[in-house]
Amino acid sequence: MFTLIKEDGQARRGVLKTRHGDIQTPIFMPVGTQATVKGMTPAQIEEVGAQIILGNTYHLNIRPGSDLVHEMGGLHQFMNWKKPILTDSGGFQVFSLSKLRKITEKGIEFRSHLDGRKLFLGPQNCYEIQKNLDTDIAMVLDECPPYPCERDECESAVARTIRWAGEFLEHATRDGFIESGHHVFGIIQGSIYDDLRQHCGQALAEMDFPGYAIGGVSVGEPEEEMIRQVAATAPVMPKGKPRYVMGVGTPPQLLKMVGLGMDMFDCVMPTRLARHASVFTPHGVLNLKNERFKHDPNPIMEADNYTCQNFSRAYLRHLIMAKELLAHTLLSIHNTHFFLDLMAQARAHIEAGDYAAWSAAWIERYNAGNQ
Amino acid sequence: MFTLIKEDGQARRGVLKTRHGDIQTPIFMPVGTQATVKGMTPAQIEEVGAQIILGNTYHLNIRPGSDLVHEMGGLHQFMNWKKPILTDSGGFQVFSLSKLRKITEKGIEFRSHLDGRKLFLGPQNCYEIQKNLDTDIAMVLDECPPYPCERDECESAVARTIRWAGEFLEHATRDGFIESGHHVFGIIQGSIYDDLRQHCGQALAEMDFPGYAIGGVSVGEPEEEMIRQVAATAPVMPKGKPRYVMGVGTPPQLLKMVGLGMDMFDCVMPTRLARHASVFTPHGVLNLKNERFKHDPNPIMEADNYTCQNFSRAYLRHLIMAKELLAHTLLSIHNTHFFLDLMAQARAHIEAGDYAAWSAAWIERYNAGNQ
Repeated sequence: MFTLIKEDGQARRGVLKTRHGDIQTPIFMPVGTQATVKGMTPAQIEEVGAQIILGNTYHLNIRPGSDLVHEMGGLHQFMNWKKPILTDSGGFQVFSLSKLRKITEKGIEFRSHLDGRKLFLGPQNCYEIQKNLDTDIAMVLDECPPYPCERDECESAVARTIRWAGEFLEHATRDGFIESGHHVFGIIQGSIYDDLRQHCGQALAEMDFPGYAIGGVSVGEPEEEMIRQVAATAPVMPKGKPRYVMGVGTPPQLLKMVGLGMDMFDCVMPTRLARHASVFTPHGVLNLKNERFKHDPNPIMEADNYTCQNFSRAYLRHLIMAKELLAHTLLSIHNTHFFLDLMAQARAHIEAGDYAAWSAAWIERYNAGNQ
Repeated sequence: MFTLIKEDGQARRGVLKTRHGDIQTPIFMPVGTQATVKGMTPAQIEEVGAQIILGNTYHLNIRPGSDLVHEMGGLHQFMNWKKPILTDSGGFQVFSLSKLRKITEKGIEFRSHLDGRKLFLGPQNCYEIQKNLDTDIAMVLDECPPYPCERDECESAVARTIRWAGEFLEHATRDGFIESGHHVFGIIQGSIYDDLRQHCGQALAEMDFPGYAIGGVSVGEPEEEMIRQVAATAPVMPKGKPRYVMGVGTPPQLLKMVGLGMDMFDCVMPTRLARHASVFTPHGVLNLKNERFKHDPNPIMEADNYTCQNFSRAYLRHLIMAKELLAHTLLSIHNTHFFLDLMAQARAHIEAGDYAAWSAAWIERYNAGNQ
């Protein structure tokens, strides 16, 4: 299901097969939390080059409910997205959004952040929800320790993460989910403790998952610490399986992690920053609210997307100042395209064998700002 | 510039030539108040079949300013809309939105509803603003009396409307605006007083405008009164010129006015109702927030637009309940297409010579509701 086409240092160029088509890695996955990538139609998401999008199990299970999505033919049909979908386990959102959670060996009891309803998430129903969504890549239920986190607390979280991963995989295997072409990825936790991350990674590797993720990064730790954790975890991740870093990151972070051998990423940053008037360029982030763009007839940058091909910074700034919906859409199109195009460039440079030099120069230019 | 192809009773099938292409009438014009039809990209507006859109002089002059739009190459280039644009005079908004207005013979002094800035709108700068926008069809400055309105107040408004129309036309003619292919439409006022409307219409007809509009309808009067005013005004509107009813209306109102020989219409209804979860169907308006659509796998209706071709009522309801931006876009696409398609059907039935029977049946079915 995963083929490595080329290696360039630790960076990898691969192809991941799914029920809804092949994914060229490294790849960025736009986030479609509530069965929509905020502000974009599926046609626009496809037009900017998305190969796979992410759906949020926690949100979709609360509203509209995974049963309703199942009744409507699964998440692909419900939201009219014909390419692959990865769903997270909902565990991270239970920790970050819900109230009054109680962790037991069986799972997590919590209350909905929307209406206070009492809910439970354990390895079995976490699997069943994602089966209802008919996802292409399901993520196991994990316990995501906070940052900072004491070692003994982290040890318990890692132990539960390993046990829940095994239970999840057992349900999915017994149910024929994996045999029918769906993938299940294990999630490696361990916070800042390298030995715990490696222990977790090895334990999951023995279970032979179709893919592996690094979870519990970008939860408040400094960037260098995050990169260090990924670097420390990479060696225990099976080389022949796709490697996914969850919930990251900035363009330079993505490039650094590709350089550490990571293949897949997701982040709300492109669409969230778009809703706050910020746009990505090779020279850093611009905030289009700035007065200096008022008379600027140029596009955000020279780029092959609908926004940059057709609209000036002056017009986009006008839409933002006038609080027009179209601003969110046009900025989301650009930002999402920017992330997807960055990964396309990364793939090309891995193929060309000059990834390290190219990515270092790219990061340097980006960080210099200078627009 | 305006050719009548076919008449069917009083209903007319025509073609209006503009600098940005031909318009097939009768036609509905989506409203792009702030240089954007709310929630839709220009590509989506074109995809639903729009032939011409409307821009609001009052709003654009306050923000971003007509000088800025001019500097950016005019409204077409600014907002990336390549087909015709009609701009209103801003007069109606001065009366409905601004504070502390004072009407003199020279024009209207008022304060911006946004920042209280003191502004002035007279026939000359009203023309110059629309010239800056580089509109295809400019509307003269008029005084729109309220409803209800005393006769003597209405007489003064009509007298000023006629004088300002003449001054506007003089500026536009002297400046070469009309010779270079731009159109200027006169606006007929007169509230509920048939003789004042006819007097206004005749006075404007003598000035030989490229087109004529009925203003001051849909300002709070009952529907029958509105229809009556249009019927009373129609006879004094030159047959060989396009006839535009400003700011209306519901689908049945549009059909009735086409039946009275009107050619052009604009209304914010399709996009405004979309933002309130309401969608048009041949059987009336549905509010998709309704619980009964929760499990409904059907499209809004069988229609050839992106929304109806790809999304269920259940999904659209989910987007609405989750307050997702995409709801506004998808509902606006459907509603705008509905109005444009209704006018396309009207054109076909005028050509076929069965407009009266078809439109009566259409209105009856629509008013029956029954979904």
